[in-house]
Amino acid sequence: MTNPVFEKIAIIGAGLIGASIARATRAYGAAETVSLYDADLDVRQRAAAIDLGKIADDLATAVADADCVILCVPVGALKAVAAETVPLMKAGATLTDVGSVKGQAADALAAAADGRVHIIPGHPIAGTEQSGPEAGFETLFRNAWHILTPLKVDGEEYAEAVSRLESFWTQLGATVETMDAARHDRVLAITSHLPHLIAFNIVATAFDMETVEQGEVVKYSAGGFRDFTRIAASDPVMWRDVFLNNKDAVLECLGRFSEDLAALQRAIRWGDGETLFNEFTRARSIRKAIIDAGQDSGAVNFGRNQRKGDGDEKA
Amino acid sequence: MTNPVFEKIAIIGAGLIGASIARATRAYGAAETVSLYDADLDVRQRAAAIDLGKIADDLATAVADADCVILCVPVGALKAVAAETVPLMKAGATLTDVGSVKGQAADALAAAADGRVHIIPGHPIAGTEQSGPEAGFETLFRNAWHILTPLKVDGEEYAEAVSRLESFWTQLGATVETMDAARHDRVLAITSHLPHLIAFNIVATAFDMETVEQGEVVKYSAGGFRDFTRIAASDPVMWRDVFLNNKDAVLECLGRFSEDLAALQRAIRWGDGETLFNEFTRARSIRKAIIDAGQDSGAVNFGRNQRKGDGDEKA
Repeated sequence: MTNPVFEKIAIIGAGLIGASIARATRAYGAAETVSLYDADLDVRQRAAAIDLGKIADDLATAVADADCVILCVPVGALKAVAAETVPLMKAGATLTDVGSVKGQAADALAAAADGRVHIIPGHPIAGTEQSGPEAGFETLFRNAWHILTPLKVDGEEYAEAVSRLESFWTQLGATVETMDAARHDRVLAITSHLPHLIAFNIVATAFDMETVEQGEVVKYSAGGFRDFTRIAASDPVMWRDVFLNNKDAVLECLGRFSEDLAALQRAIRWGDGETLFNEFTRARSIRKAIIDAGQDSGAVNFGRNQRKGDGDEKA
Repeated sequence: MTNPVFEKIAIIGAGLIGASIARATRAYGAAETVSLYDADLDVRQRAAAIDLGKIADDLATAVADADCVILCVPVGALKAVAAETVPLMKAGATLTDVGSVKGQAADALAAAADGRVHIIPGHPIAGTEQSGPEAGFETLFRNAWHILTPLKVDGEEYAEAVSRLESFWTQLGATVETMDAARHDRVLAITSHLPHLIAFNIVATAFDMETVEQGEVVKYSAGGFRDFTRIAASDPVMWRDVFLNNKDAVLECLGRFSEDLAALQRAIRWGDGETLFNEFTRARSIRKAIIDAGQDSGAVNFGRNQRKGDGDEKA
């Protein structure tokens, strides 16, 4: 076992991600002390009931003396929470986050900067469709990517802070990558944000069909629809904030998606089987690339990585 | 153990579904003899190599004396295969299929009718994204729905044939439902066909983004995209035929989907967080309905029902 990376970390926001960080930090000894705080009293009480760790009654107590503060709140709340948090932090400590959008997140965190703390935005590519403190589990970040998007700050101290934060996430089982925030947002728009939007949308469309009863949709959902409903069960506040804060990249992907879909629609209408066959064959090949790249081992399977044996499509 | 429902069945087409029927029939004793045939010599040899059962060298041998013939071929091939098969069948035997579209399938089968055999279209709501004889497994139909869309044929003999076919699928572990073909096609258009089209499309869109490398799409696919690629790995020929043969119902769903998506796109563009939040919350509730209805037990989880312990989202 390696040594703790930090003496004390503070986790602000005890939802799925915050709770998982708390459990993973304890399980893998990544910090000596873990303090949690959530602005919602009910969430604090639920977190205490399931023994998530030391639950502070206020932000100042949680943050006091922490070497690293991790904001696990929706992207839309980041700016206000960061502004409240930074003045409570000790000098030289690190402030990071776990938001799914990084450009706006970086701006929100940077706005709170006072020159005393290191601000290093981050995003774990891990999650499930569950939310709340009860949804957290210690293996969530194992074999997952963790992306850091450091600010343009010179100096050895900042570089050291980045390196320490890398070690922390590595100790939780993640593989850390560093990239700039704009690139992160472009990549995630297509690999995560658009898929979620599509899933939310198809579920709503099904809901509204007058020609098919909702009960039938539920009953026969095994034909493919159910996979979408799982993704669409994700936290509405978190996802609202993602779309509001990664607007340009999402709209760009969405425009292309709709164009491509219109072409398939036209092929169906005119009975153009060749176009359909070619497009479907092309889609199949990217799946093969994912399996070949080992990106579908059970361990990193979004939403199911806690379940043993799943995700091995070759089984 | 119950008795065999049929003395001999013939399975025409040894892909995922045909191979699974062969294995399930043997495992659960649903017929005394199982004969398989595939028009593709390579598939026949692969089926023989993995001990799928008695592989016939020609259609006539497979079908001879069979009490039930199950066509497991793409919907587009049904008409030709049915026309070739019916004259080889013994009088009073049953001809069924497993096509994902039932209106056109029923027409294709009915066109081959010669008054000697009972034609009963069917569709198991089960599958994985795999194809070929090696992909078959005996538990595929357990806890899955099997839909029969009987023709409008009067008489006790036909009713008895339907009842016997029901018993057969029940013995393989399925729950049988009977409905008319048009209703089947409307329900499946939204629960299966549209989700597959969307999955194929989003994968193609991702493939074509110049601003994001394909390697990055693969690497960070855990954020939601990977679930779509799994669905999009499904057999291109089968799905081409589905869309060509359920055109009207699919185009109707697709039109509504695009309308709904345009509304979300507008909400993103104008920063209308309330609309996004409300739609996402609504989508989440249908997921809850599916879990409450017990439609997400691991056993019927599309594409993953062979894997133990998966699908329990409450775990």
